[in-house]
Amino acid sequence: MRYKMVLAYHGEQFSGWQRQDNAPSVQAAVETALSNIDGRAVSVIAAGRTDSGVHAVGQVISFDLNRPMHPDKLLLAINFHLRPQNVAAMTCQLVPPDFHARFNATGRDYRYRLLIRVAPPVLERGQVWHHPRLLDISTMQDGAAFLVGHHDFSSFRAAQCQATSPIRTLTLAQVMAVEDEIHFLFSARSFLHHQVRNMVGTLVLVGRGIMTPADIKTILTAKDRNQAGPTAPAQGLCLMAVHYDRAEQADAKKIITNNGESANE
Amino acid sequence: MRYKMVLAYHGEQFSGWQRQDNAPSVQAAVETALSNIDGRAVSVIAAGRTDSGVHAVGQVISFDLNRPMHPDKLLLAINFHLRPQNVAAMTCQLVPPDFHARFNATGRDYRYRLLIRVAPPVLERGQVWHHPRLLDISTMQDGAAFLVGHHDFSSFRAAQCQATSPIRTLTLAQVMAVEDEIHFLFSARSFLHHQVRNMVGTLVLVGRGIMTPADIKTILTAKDRNQAGPTAPAQGLCLMAVHYDRAEQADAKKIITNNGESANE
Repeated sequence: MRYKMVLAYHGEQFSGWQRQDNAPSVQAAVETALSNIDGRAVSVIAAGRTDSGVHAVGQVISFDLNRPMHPDKLLLAINFHLRPQNVAAMTCQLVPPDFHARFNATGRDYRYRLLIRVAPPVLERGQVWHHPRLLDISTMQDGAAFLVGHHDFSSFRAAQCQATSPIRTLTLAQVMAVEDEIHFLFSARSFLHHQVRNMVGTLVLVGRGIMTPADIKTILTAKDRNQAGPTAPAQGLCLMAVHYDRAEQADAKKIITNNGESANE
Repeated sequence: MRYKMVLAYHGEQFSGWQRQDNAPSVQAAVETALSNIDGRAVSVIAAGRTDSGVHAVGQVISFDLNRPMHPDKLLLAINFHLRPQNVAAMTCQLVPPDFHARFNATGRDYRYRLLIRVAPPVLERGQVWHHPRLLDISTMQDGAAFLVGHHDFSSFRAAQCQATSPIRTLTLAQVMAVEDEIHFLFSARSFLHHQVRNMVGTLVLVGRGIMTPADIKTILTAKDRNQAGPTAPAQGLCLMAVHYDRAEQADAKKIITNNGESANE
């Protein structure tokens, strides 16, 4: 039986999603919990391999269990096992056996939070990039508009990025004020390594008046990482949601009906 | 020179506002920072002596400095000294020498956050009371309405409360849905010890259907702590703002003008 599960986690306690030999990872925490529940080793596939320090409220994973369990019961069981670790399962549902959290994803939404005030973060600590000076939201929005569309994002790509192509299609790049914060929202089918953090780091230079909005277009065209701004710190970034085709959801519902079970998503 | 300062802090690291011999307090952290800046012992007065685990984004303190300092500079200096401790000064201004953060306060606003979902808190951890089952917001709002006004709040008062009178005037009691949370907002000139947490703990019984909204009226009339519900956990509570008469602000502006300085609030 294949399951789809939505996870939330606080990035601070982990050196990223991916399992590592000598550091705590979200993947290891989740696989250990599922293996304890299923009684044998369980491997999970994630929609996005978030970096160390990056948060998630809508990470999606897929995995198989040997011993089938009602999704509602599995949700309670995994949250019980994960409890000390600041990872939680938000929803769980049965999906067709060919569902793949990473390859089937049709869209990923990220949010980056900047805190704009003199006082350092307190209740928001570890979840924002603190910026004690005002930024021009209007020019940042104008700069962000140049990023939307089908482009070669080599200028915003980490040196260690393993993607075969630097071309991506950004469907959303929004900059907005939210109380004493500025939020950057980005959507695409997929992103390059550090792409969001490099876009934010560069747009902040626009907001500070060091670059103009049109410089973003020049940087894109240059296809040169050195032309863009610095990588924004990990803790401001959060994977908000991963999207899939509706057809897969319909298939999942059919399976659930056949088994006489109900999905909770 | 007397100063008024607005503080934010995360309650988890402290055993409350008030200085204690063998436990970290917000008061000790702030007084140590100010004493380091001023070069001699500084005592501060807070508008609300928040309990262990309770957060603040709008706590107000008043204090005198021996060596006058521009409020903007003081704000930077205290945040530098407080940095490791998850306390921050949001704003700072000069006020008349008779300004008293506690006695002059004309209103205090508290917010209590309930997280309503199966999955435990992750990014909200330590700032919400987790409630895995749905609550009826409408009946809680009806119950809360009975609390508004001038009442004897003995039924919602901690045994250790030191106030001379159990009579308080609640000016706001609002229950609202905010994404997957329920927020309780309460305003009054002042509150009894544990009053907000006891009101929330009782309203949750109404939301669960264990009590009716009219039971709140009966409980108020009984003047008996045993009639009300349990005390809600500290971590969901936050002191949002403290209000003062406008006249004092005007006086403060006059002083600032006389000194050729500007306020940042």
